[in-house]
Amino acid sequence: MEESYTVLPIGRVTAPRKEAIDDQWGGIVSAIEIDARFGPEALQGLEAFSHLEVIFLMHLVPDAEISSGARRPRGRSDWPEVGIFAQRAKGRPNRLGLSRCRLVGVSGRTLTVRGLDAIDGTPVLDLKPYLAEFGPIGEVRQPSWATELMARYYDE
Amino acid sequence: MEESYTVLPIGRVTAPRKEAIDDQWGGIVSAIEIDARFGPEALQGLEAFSHLEVIFLMHLVPDAEISSGARRPRGRSDWPEVGIFAQRAKGRPNRLGLSRCRLVGVSGRTLTVRGLDAIDGTPVLDLKPYLAEFGPIGEVRQPSWATELMARYYDE
Repeated sequence: MEESYTVLPIGRVTAPRKEAIDDQWGGIVSAIEIDARFGPEALQGLEAFSHLEVIFLMHLVPDAEISSGARRPRGRSDWPEVGIFAQRAKGRPNRLGLSRCRLVGVSGRTLTVRGLDAIDGTPVLDLKPYLAEFGPIGEVRQPSWATELMARYYDE
Repeated sequence: MEESYTVLPIGRVTAPRKEAIDDQWGGIVSAIEIDARFGPEALQGLEAFSHLEVIFLMHLVPDAEISSGARRPRGRSDWPEVGIFAQRAKGRPNRLGLSRCRLVGVSGRTLTVRGLDAIDGTPVLDLKPYLAEFGPIGEVRQPSWATELMARYYDE
């Protein structure tokens, strides 16, 4: 059996969306407020980056919706059953969310971001600058259901 | 004060590197073994993706090395002091690591991956397939120190 670990949010999202909606995250402008235990120096130099990676906790997903096996993404009967680690559904072990978003600005302990797919109140566990070299190396291949699922995800 | 959360590793890395080294992660082939509480169906369909995103816990970083302010990346005096959330150093709150790597193969509960910058024994908190649409939208901009830092990171 694995040993558990405790994580403490480093901040929280303030966003116009109060509940999870499947699509159209592209135009969403939200804020990430860093916890008061950090000084603004924890964000020093961040504005030199265009994009961030945000690891967050999808804290409102109930236990009953956590899958540890396979399921059809979005319950779509025309898409295959795939394992929870072969999809990005929110009902997943540890409820971790991960997204890249555009950094609009930094002011004190508040970041303004665009295109973050996290609802209002979401606890943030980490922020990292996006570096081009950390992108996928080599050609990206993905199944057609995944491309269909993403068709309107980042629409504005 | 923020409320803490408990996370339980979903698996563990088996890797040739026993300690963290700054560079040359590109040719490293390692395995991620999913915990026995999951069946192989948790990975069903994953082989249709070329790349994964892995969220892991840099569990060996001692408390004394966790920064909550600003520091020079790799201690380099020719690089600026930047906040811990403006760099990807391992001495960070919650010790979360995040990388993309190439999926080489899946067999039962074991994944073989290439280019994962995690040492042997690293607890894995989540695995997600990499989807091209989740890449950064728009042009990526980063400071010169970050580009210099990455110059040999993924060398083979």
